[in-house]
This record gives sequence, C-alpha cells and structure tokens, in this order.
Amino acid sequence: MAAGARMTVDRAREEVRVDLGPRSYPIVVGEGVLDEVGARLAAEGFRGRAGLVTSERVATLYADRVERALVAAGFTPLTVAIPDGDDHKNLAWLAVVYDRFLDARIERRTPVVALGGGVIGDVAGFAAATLLRGLPIVQLPTTLLAQVDAAIGGKTGVNHPLGKNLIGAFHQPRFVLADVGTLRTLPRRELAGGLAEVIKYGIIRDADLFARLETGVGALLDAEPGVLAPVVAACARIKAAVVSRDELETGGERAVLNFGHTVGHAVEVLTEYRELLHGEAVAIGMVAAARLSRRRGLCDDRTVDRIVGVLEAAGLPTELPPGLAPAALAVALQTDKKSAGGRIRFIALEAIGRTRFVELTAAEIANQL
Amino acid sequence: MAAGARMTVDRAREEVRVDLGPRSYPIVVGEGVLDEVGARLAAEGFRGRAGLVTSERVATLYADRVERALVAAGFTPLTVAIPDGDDHKNLAWLAVVYDRFLDARIERRTPVVALGGGVIGDVAGFAAATLLRGLPIVQLPTTLLAQVDAAIGGKTGVNHPLGKNLIGAFHQPRFVLADVGTLRTLPRRELAGGLAEVIKYGIIRDADLFARLETGVGALLDAEPGVLAPVVAACARIKAAVVSRDELETGGERAVLNFGHTVGHAVEVLTEYRELLHGEAVAIGMVAAARLSRRRGLCDDRTVDRIVGVLEAAGLPTELPPGLAPAALAVALQTDKKSAGGRIRFIALEAIGRTRFVELTAAEIANQL
Repeated sequence: MAAGARMTVDRAREEVRVDLGPRSYPIVVGEGVLDEVGARLAAEGFRGRAGLVTSERVATLYADRVERALVAAGFTPLTVAIPDGDDHKNLAWLAVVYDRFLDARIERRTPVVALGGGVIGDVAGFAAATLLRGLPIVQLPTTLLAQVDAAIGGKTGVNHPLGKNLIGAFHQPRFVLADVGTLRTLPRRELAGGLAEVIKYGIIRDADLFARLETGVGALLDAEPGVLAPVVAACARIKAAVVSRDELETGGERAVLNFGHTVGHAVEVLTEYRELLHGEAVAIGMVAAARLSRRRGLCDDRTVDRIVGVLEAAGLPTELPPGLAPAALAVALQTDKKSAGGRIRFIALEAIGRTRFVELTAAEIANQL
Repeated sequence: MAAGARMTVDRAREEVRVDLGPRSYPIVVGEGVLDEVGARLAAEGFRGRAGLVTSERVATLYADRVERALVAAGFTPLTVAIPDGDDHKNLAWLAVVYDRFLDARIERRTPVVALGGGVIGDVAGFAAATLLRGLPIVQLPTTLLAQVDAAIGGKTGVNHPLGKNLIGAFHQPRFVLADVGTLRTLPRRELAGGLAEVIKYGIIRDADLFARLETGVGALLDAEPGVLAPVVAACARIKAAVVSRDELETGGERAVLNFGHTVGHAVEVLTEYRELLHGEAVAIGMVAAARLSRRRGLCDDRTVDRIVGVLEAAGLPTELPPGLAPAALAVALQTDKKSAGGRIRFIALEAIGRTRFVELTAAEIANQL
C-alpha cells in the first residue's frame, strides 16, 4: 500500500531534460508544479520583478496562484492578460505586451512567465525574445497541446494576416512547468485536441506509447493527473530528443514533428480556422498522411486502420471535411511556409513508430488523398 | 610605381573574420565590394528571390547598382525603401517590411540584403531575424558609422516610444560588404560622426590606431577610399574580436564597446535626438568618461587632452550642451537599458588603449562630470 502510494507520487512527477548545451533546460511534469515557479526563478538567480503573460480565462483560474508563488519567492509580478483565442496572437497584442513591460522599466534580467496555452506561450515567448534583445522566459503550459508540444522547443511567434506564425523567433525557455492538474479545467474537446498530438508522438516515434493509447484513451479523457503525467512526460521526452538534435529546424529531423500537419494546416486554412481545433485538423492530416503512405506502398492497411481507430476513440475527426476540392487543397499546401522551391518534404509513414520523408509537389499530395 | 599601385590596391581591400563557430562570417572592406553581393549570395547556395531593404536616399544612389549585381547572379530582387531617419526605425515601418516580403511569399531560404546606414541595418536585420523565424541577412553598410560598428555583431532592432532599440534581437549576418567608396557620398558631418566611433576603437583597444588618427584625421575627412579602407578594417578587426568573445553581451566584454555611450546616450535623450548626431553625442560622452576617470585618479590629464584634441580635429563636440543639469542627466542615465538593479557598469579609462569597469550609480556619474 505504502509502496503503491509512493509509486503513484513518483509517476505523477517526472523531469525531462532538453539537451541544448548552454541552453539546456528541464521540463517538470506533475500535479501542482505551478507553485514552484517563484522558487525556481529565485534558484536561477533572478530577483525583483517578473513579467506574467496570461489569457483572460486562464487568469481567472490560475493567475492568483502563480502571482502568490512569485510573491512568496520575493518577486513583484507585472501581469498582462490577453483575450483568449488565436485571433489575439498578433502584432497588435504583442505591442500591448511591449508597452506594459517597457512602461514598467523592465531590465535585461527580468524574467517573463508564460501562463496559458499555445497562444500565450507563443506571444509571451516572442515578446521575451525581442524585448531588450532577449529576456529570460519560462513556460507554464495549461493545455495538453501546450504541455506536450508548444511549450517545448523554443518556437515563438505571432500570426500575420497572410498566415499563422509567419513572424517569430527561436527562444528557449529556462524551464517548463507542465502542471497536469490544470488539465482538469480544460474543456473535454480541447483535451481531445491535445490528444491528437499525443497520438502523433506514438505514430512517429513510440510504438509502445501508441499501443498504450489504443487501450487507454478513455482514461486520459478523464484528465486524471496520475494517468496523464506519465503520458505527458513520454511525449515531452520525444519532443526534447528531437529538439536537442535539431534546435532550429535546419537539420531536417525536427520536421518529423510536423507529421499530419502539412495536410492538417491546409485544412485549417481552407476552413478559415473556424470549424476545427488545431488537434482536430492534425487528426485529419495524420489519417491523410497514413492513407497517402499506404497508396504509395510505404505502409500497410492495418497501420492506417489502427490510426483511425485510436483517433476515433479519442473523439477526433478522421475524414476531410466534405466539399474540399483537391485543387483548393493544392493551393493551400503550396503556401505552406515550409515549402522550398515548390517542393514539400512530406512526412510519410512506414509503420507505427517509423516515418520517412518523401519529396512531393502540392498537387501530388492533394491528388493522392 | 607599379609596386606602389599594387600596395594601394592591397590596402584598399581587406577581409576581417568574425569568429563565432557555425555563425562565423567575413567582413570585406574595400572600394567597389558592393558589386559582389550577388555572386557571394550565390556562392553561399542561395537562389531565387532576394529581399533588399534600403532607405529612400540610399536607394537613389546605390539601389540600381545592388539590384544589377543581384540580377547578374540570377536573383530576383524585392526592394522596399524606408524613409530616411531614425524616426522610421519603428514597429510601423517594420510591419511595412513584413507585409512586403510576406506578400511576395518569401521562403526560409530567401536572403535579405540591408543597404544603408545603421537604421536600415537594424530594421532589415530585425525583420530578417523574425520573418519565418529567421531569414539569412547580409549587411551592406553605406555610412562610416555602420561600417565600423552597426553592421558588425548581429545587433538588430527598432525603437519604441519609450526608448531606442528597446525591441530587437541578435541575428548575425552571413557576410558584411563595407564599400568605402560609398563614403564619398556621405555628408561631411556624418562622416565626422562616424569618426567618433573610429576614435573610440583607438581609445579602448588600439593606441597605435589612436596615434595615427591624431595626425591623420584630416585625410579621413576627405573620404579617400585608399585612406579609409585600412582604418575601417582596423576598427572592424577590433569589433570582430570583441564580438567573437561575447556574442550576446552576456560576458561583459562586449560592453567595452559602449565606452562614451552611457553619457552620450543620456545626452541624446535629453536633447531629444534633435541637435546631435549619434557620433557627436558619443564624442561628448567619451570626453565625459575620460574626465570622470581622471577625477577618480584612473588616468592622467594628458590622456584627456589627447582625446579632446583628436575629437576637435575631427570637428566633433567635446563639451556637454549648456544647461544640462546633473539631476536631469542622472534621471536619463537611470533609464539606460543596460542598468541592472540601479547600478551602471561604467566604462572608465586607464590609458589610451586600456579601459576598466567601475560600478557607479546614475547620481555618482552625473555629479562627477
């Protein structure tokens, strides 16, 4: 009984290291780790003020708690809350963050704390990357999507009217605190959206994780911290390993994380980011990528069926929205910011846990879906 | 005669390397090197489009020539010209550059060419640092100030209503082409302003350079490429060495480049950037720093006199503008973005070629000028 209890505690708290030489940092996964932010910042040698960027909704849930943790460690928090939603991830709201922090006369050693989902992590991270040519940033992701993906790896940025994330920078955090307790307050649909990325990690790199998801997706949707923590940590380990080998997405390896995202992104563009959550579009894109791989003889039917099965169990869509013409998809694919010279490095599938790159044109992809 | 001619050619073209591991790059100093931009970009493996950011005034002088060099090497230039002046180094003009390049569907391998003075290098460099999370940038500085300082070392950014360069990033160029021929079209006052930074290099690191300037400032003001090239190269070598050892201004060494800038910056703020060129404010700041050093017993009278002498020979101011109260100076010093915890690491002088850091409060500096 005591051993069992201790095992639960151990499983509910894991630390993953992102190995980037002088820019290495830990990702701490567990329930309640949000409360450690002040002590950890102080341990890193910071003091005085601390910027806190959050969303209006997350602020009502967790800003008090994080501010208390900062104050308890001797910091004076400077909080700025951005309205919720990807619509506010833009240069105008970035300017609001700039104004707030510059008006408070922040200094080069003033740390910035990002508390929220991917939008907050991206805006706060980019503000930190560019204020006084770089302030320290720490990430406190409060969505499953952000905990397993957005908060890890240093990608920051804002949208432009011509496309998502077109303006940004790489800026690694000093640490990431992934408090799985915060996922209890996440709407079930958003949790499922995050599960799409979890399933993606299984597909691209970890057949064991994938097999566990096939039987255990239901328990994850109940947001039990003891069940979520080891899964979040497993995903963080995969992302950390990829990022460690290809920090700036120049070596090609980091692109594997975009499995399902090429088509998923095109679907998001064509549905104007209104109908589908990011994870839902990625779910559709992963099935599309698996089917394209099968059509090219790279993987078998069973692999596709297993992917469809686990996504359906998570309540995620698996089919392209009706009425999407291949020609429209081809145009949307063509404008992907990762395209180079008209060719797209498509991430295809050989088996669960194993991918390969295939160079295709946008038309070739659109016509093989 | 032939040997003499060849010596002139050699002296008129020098290459300096900034050693930053995988981000190392050459600074090519000489007359006519502007015309090499296309061939050098092609040699680095780029092709297709090339962004060109310049100022309206520089565009009338050199944009055609640079565009021709790009076209000759197979590039399609996308040119955007910003109105001249530091007033346009802001988020609004940055957004114009973003719009122009994103509208043209630039890709991650589209290089950006900065053609102009420090304002252009900073805006273009920051745009390149942040478009698609980082495009390659090359610097073609056309002012003396930019050739010996701004174009080297990767500092980029824009101003904010609350201060200069408060938003920015470090983004090293792929190469710098310092065409000393372009300095012939520079107004004499601006050339003198650039000489303030040249003199600074002598003061902080190179007593020989300083001694040469004491006798040769007049020839430099005539903007003869054969005379300017070795001096620009000497300055570039000093800046390159400092930047190589302290790329991100974290180790402290890079701060030595701010000699004269602490007070100079405060003077610029208090005169609202209207009366003085940057170099003129730096000249005043260097004399102030030298006098403060003498008052603290760190250097002798003769050192101060030599600095005043060479600055006067260059036609630069050496006295604080009348009516600047120490209290106002103290407030301006306090808001310096390099201050930390209320203390300023002041760069004091021990001798020509030798500096030391002294920790002072803003009031201590203001009262000792």
